[in-house]
Amino acid sequence: MSTDAFVPHPDRLLPVDPAVRDIARELYGRMAEQPIVSPHGHVDPRLLLDDTPFTDPTSLFITPDHYVTRLLHARGVSLADLGVGRGPLSEAEARHAWGLLAEHWRAYAGTPSRLWMEHEFHEVFGIEKVLSPATADELYDHIAERLARPEFRPRALFEQFRIEVLATTDDPCDDLAPHRALAADPGFAGQVVPTFRPDRYLEPARPDFAQLADALGEAAGIDTAGYAGFTEAMRVRRLFFREHGGVSTDHSHADAGTARLAEEEAARLFAQARAGRIAPADAVALRRHLLADQARMAADDGLVMTLHPAVHRNHHAETFARYGADVGADIPTSVTFVDGLAPVLNDVGLEKDFRLVLFTIDETVFSREIAPLAGFYPSVYAGAPWWFIDAPDAILRYRRAVSETIGYSRTSGFIDDTRAFCSIPARHDMSRRLDANHLATLVAEHRVRLEDAAALVETLPAQHPREVFKLGGTR
Amino acid sequence: MSTDAFVPHPDRLLPVDPAVRDIARELYGRMAEQPIVSPHGHVDPRLLLDDTPFTDPTSLFITPDHYVTRLLHARGVSLADLGVGRGPLSEAEARHAWGLLAEHWRAYAGTPSRLWMEHEFHEVFGIEKVLSPATADELYDHIAERLARPEFRPRALFEQFRIEVLATTDDPCDDLAPHRALAADPGFAGQVVPTFRPDRYLEPARPDFAQLADALGEAAGIDTAGYAGFTEAMRVRRLFFREHGGVSTDHSHADAGTARLAEEEAARLFAQARAGRIAPADAVALRRHLLADQARMAADDGLVMTLHPAVHRNHHAETFARYGADVGADIPTSVTFVDGLAPVLNDVGLEKDFRLVLFTIDETVFSREIAPLAGFYPSVYAGAPWWFIDAPDAILRYRRAVSETIGYSRTSGFIDDTRAFCSIPARHDMSRRLDANHLATLVAEHRVRLEDAAALVETLPAQHPREVFKLGGTR
Amino acid sequence: MSTDAFVPHPDRLLPVDPAVRDIARELYGRMAEQPIVSPHGHVDPRLLLDDTPFTDPTSLFITPDHYVTRLLHARGVSLADLGVGRGPLSEAEARHAWGLLAEHWRAYAGTPSRLWMEHEFHEVFGIEKVLSPATADELYDHIAERLARPEFRPRALFEQFRIEVLATTDDPCDDLAPHRALAADPGFAGQVVPTFRPDRYLEPARPDFAQLADALGEAAGIDTAGYAGFTEAMRVRRLFFREHGGVSTDHSHADAGTARLAEEEAARLFAQARAGRIAPADAVALRRHLLADQARMAADDGLVMTLHPAVHRNHHAETFARYGADVGADIPTSVTFVDGLAPVLNDVGLEKDFRLVLFTIDETVFSREIAPLAGFYPSVYAGAPWWFIDAPDAILRYRRAVSETIGYSRTSGFIDDTRAFCSIPARHDMSRRLDANHLATLVAEHRVRLEDAAALVETLPAQHPREVFKLGGTR
Repeated sequence: MSTDAFVPHPDRLLPVDPAVRDIARELYGRMAEQPIVSPHGHVDPRLLLDDTPFTDPTSLFITPDHYVTRLLHARGVSLADLGVGRGPLSEAEARHAWGLLAEHWRAYAGTPSRLWMEHEFHEVFGIEKVLSPATADELYDHIAERLARPEFRPRALFEQFRIEVLATTDDPCDDLAPHRALAADPGFAGQVVPTFRPDRYLEPARPDFAQLADALGEAAGIDTAGYAGFTEAMRVRRLFFREHGGVSTDHSHADAGTARLAEEEAARLFAQARAGRIAPADAVALRRHLLADQARMAADDGLVMTLHPAVHRNHHAETFARYGADVGADIPTSVTFVDGLAPVLNDVGLEKDFRLVLFTIDETVFSREIAPLAGFYPSVYAGAPWWFIDAPDAILRYRRAVSETIGYSRTSGFIDDTRAFCSIPARHDMSRRLDANHLATLVAEHRVRLEDAAALVETLPAQHPREVFKLGGTR
Repeated sequence: MSTDAFVPHPDRLLPVDPAVRDIARELYGRMAEQPIVSPHGHVDPRLLLDDTPFTDPTSLFITPDHYVTRLLHARGVSLADLGVGRGPLSEAEARHAWGLLAEHWRAYAGTPSRLWMEHEFHEVFGIEKVLSPATADELYDHIAERLARPEFRPRALFEQFRIEVLATTDDPCDDLAPHRALAADPGFAGQVVPTFRPDRYLEPARPDFAQLADALGEAAGIDTAGYAGFTEAMRVRRLFFREHGGVSTDHSHADAGTARLAEEEAARLFAQARAGRIAPADAVALRRHLLADQARMAADDGLVMTLHPAVHRNHHAETFARYGADVGADIPTSVTFVDGLAPVLNDVGLEKDFRLVLFTIDETVFSREIAPLAGFYPSVYAGAPWWFIDAPDAILRYRRAVSETIGYSRTSGFIDDTRAFCSIPARHDMSRRLDANHLATLVAEHRVRLEDAAALVETLPAQHPREVFKLGGTR
Repeated sequence: MSTDAFVPHPDRLLPVDPAVRDIARELYGRMAEQPIVSPHGHVDPRLLLDDTPFTDPTSLFITPDHYVTRLLHARGVSLADLGVGRGPLSEAEARHAWGLLAEHWRAYAGTPSRLWMEHEFHEVFGIEKVLSPATADELYDHIAERLARPEFRPRALFEQFRIEVLATTDDPCDDLAPHRALAADPGFAGQVVPTFRPDRYLEPARPDFAQLADALGEAAGIDTAGYAGFTEAMRVRRLFFREHGGVSTDHSHADAGTARLAEEEAARLFAQARAGRIAPADAVALRRHLLADQARMAADDGLVMTLHPAVHRNHHAETFARYGADVGADIPTSVTFVDGLAPVLNDVGLEKDFRLVLFTIDETVFSREIAPLAGFYPSVYAGAPWWFIDAPDAILRYRRAVSETIGYSRTSGFIDDTRAFCSIPARHDMSRRLDANHLATLVAEHRVRLEDAAALVETLPAQHPREVFKLGGTR
């Protein structure tokens, strides 16, 4: 028997103890086949609109996935050799990059990236061998052959993956043409919704702030020379997103601070920012005010606000200059929510239509801040682990940290946050297995009744995020 | 068989693995029947003095317990409907509130509140059904009927709960009349001791600082116009508490900072504070100095000092205005002890009679700061998990974080910190189960000998906190 | 059968579940007999040069080990009674101190110190009893008798322990005479390498900064009156260490900040520091620049840079005055790496010969900062748990926190960091057991293939740290 043989184990990520595992299997079994609701991610909607076949294994699995490229980079592989920051690779280059992954595959042992890819290899492509230098070419050919088939085109996979809702992430000025076209396409039944991501428009220290404000004004058909017009333009664009299916706005700044300036002060600082001569501290104050404005608008238009703060973006300047953003050089920093969010939560925290989901990669705030906030404010939800902590042990730490204060009901439900389309089912499956793991342990320790856990998992994977993100019932 | 049937499992919170569970049962068995020593909490001593029957299930279980009300609030229930911040509920209102809890009961799955209440339902009230909309009225009637019986009056329960010592939390100006009356009452054998909580008298930025200083002076019979008199009045009131059974003082400020100002400087800032015109930074400096004074007094009078810092109190101003404090809107913030406590620990940290117990809801300091401090200073003890982390997984995290540096001997013993009288045995029982769980795992992994664990648990629940809080031997 | 009987269990620290334990035994078995590579520690090289017998159990196990003395101190024992900060103890004093340890031995249950000592008692000295007041004299005599035998002299133990490499920690001005003598000694086959530890030379705020700069200049034969000469002298001394086997430099400051000043500015501040009149903020800026200089030198000379920041040293001034440093009064503080290291990592983070190992006792940075940095920069490695967290549960927390981002390959390998020579094998053995524990759990949960785990452990204990610390292949 070849040691190359490998398929993911059906009990992977479930508890080892037989008594607990039996409960976990039961709970997982109730979730496994539920549809996928993905309320936050980074898949390009054109992928589904154009339905163009994926070209090759490397451009599918390696180049666009900074979880994968960063570890190869840390192990000495050049990002250039992986196709990062350049046009399409030739067949020889793509095959070479694939071989590099195979060569370093063992270093991925225990990482979610490997677990996701192994899931995809098997579940999507029917592979029953482990990736290695010996099998690299065979697997490359196997996947490439499949990719050429019609049933591996994006829309077919979307259907096969049982994705009901897929949210994209979009610029406030985006015309949402792909979303509109998809919605109008009788041949596509899925729900692909835009997400309003205004980060850069809320950063008054940016050198291009004036141009961004202009662009926003143009998109909204409103003069944004002053603060009032800027605000109105934001409101208009948010409504445009909402009209085209958008349910949420997404925000990521250096910290989670919010503040309310007097309107005149906001207008004064806005003018300085537009003129490119705002002082750094004032730029921070204005940014916090503008974020508080978004919360106020959210209380009006009902778009769910999600916060992902505190990342040192593009930590290595030369890499950014050469390869651009999102190549693995964004590093988390410490965060605090309690004081920073007080202005917004005092303003709209009890408003019926306001909703705020807090994400973190600083795990210290789960039990200390996020669960206590979500355990008091009806508007606040504890976001699922994200990015560096979207991983088995971290997900279990999250559940253990927040559940004792807020159970499951005040949590957001799973967020895949991915630009790797094929990994979506693998990620959701992992999340379901780990929730089953966590709940089964609570049941086995007689901390939760099996009936309660079983009832919970009926709605946990799909219906619950639909409710949190105001996506309505299942279609 | 009705699915309504439910009693807490005798092995709840113990490890699942049969080999480990057997050890845990053995260790828990040695602790289960030991008396309760509760050196820190918030029960009103008048409850025991007057021995008035509890009126109804809602005012017993829901209204006063912000652990319970906050999650209902987060799920959209109005605090007013739960009786928070208002006078007694009518029978119909109380029953309605009880129904709301029943309706949301599933959302409490996995929270300690539910585990505690289920313990109380069964152990105190003999209930063998699960709370649900279907059983809500039946359970309400069941509990209400019991509450009318003499054996459910507070003193009878105190006896039945095997409480030996119960500490209350009291204002420095309190005349401790209930404590004195209880001590003098031949019909009451329990020990109910006051705790000196001077927080607001140590906050020079408060607008009512002068009135508070006046009140303190009046209570002590000392002129507190100046810093020296204020200090002397504090000393006198501490001794008053000690004379009436007090063993500790409790402190909770925005941070754990301490500092020693020159006496003249302290006097100068005190005068400014009294005049209502102290600068914010000076108010912080004086607060830290006054806290350091408390430590110095503690080294003299031997009262154990407990520190619970770093909570953003009354995070939502409107809720505070409408419902008052302690309704679930206090949110923890990050804390650090090492630099802030250096002045006090250099001053009195090696003094024979000084003792300082450090509590936190910022779990990051357990392994980083608290255990190292308690592992060097004979005066410092690592306080038990508290508030948001007084919960199964968090308690296990605590033991795992501190035990490897300081074992069990430098920890405070369990603190229930509750105003929910009936939950006291449930909370202590949970703590004992979890210590059994932690120790059994160490034994099963051959990290601790069974003999050592067995010897430890003989003194852990009752004798150990008696020693830490200088409560003397068992009566 | 006497309850005194005790030997460490062969399965200690392995998982309890039989299925997982079998896998862990298999993995541990592959590591247990591998040689020891110790790239960072504090053993005095003269111990091996002189090969003087250890005198007595107390001076071997208690006096020099602040892990042991600190807990006794916290429990009320005077450091003086343990021989700390004084000359050799008399036989009676040493026996008395040993009796104190025996008396408090139960309080060490669950601490790594006890596990290490029990390992040493049994594996090195053949003891099969537990330490207690009843057995204290017997064990003392037993160990003392063994210590007089030739096979218990340091060199014999070095051989018996299978230590291949032992790094010491040394002052930049050290002449490394013991290292040179050992290397030249045909009767000693081990590799004892120095480590360059320039901390105090990089602290411009020190009152003795000028003298230190002078001493450095003298050692290097270079005029260090100015910044340029000082820098050159550093470079020269680093090369001297490298020539005599040194592979790394070690750094521990109050924080992990680095910065690059303009050269003229650095020269100007250096002159002020030398003159003893540098402002505190400037001293911090210069220290960060000097640390960044070390990184730049490391990129040139290839010495591996290790960072152990954020400890409040000598927290209790009086204890420091009486007993000196390293007696258990160093307390960790919170740390952050991301912004502070950006200057250095932008400067040399992608340089081929630069290597930076990040250690922490603030566990919050494992998943948040260290793994993400080590998962992008080829130069950065996640250092093993150290000091207060060099303990079973903490080591498992570390593996669980970093492995999901960087697997095992971007971690440093185990560091014993000890001055307790006899504890070296016990510490490495514990580390191997815990890695087996962690990996076996991943295998049992079908997250890592047994083949991959088995391949990993072949190189994990010895070859991997050799590679990270550039120590070459096995001899």
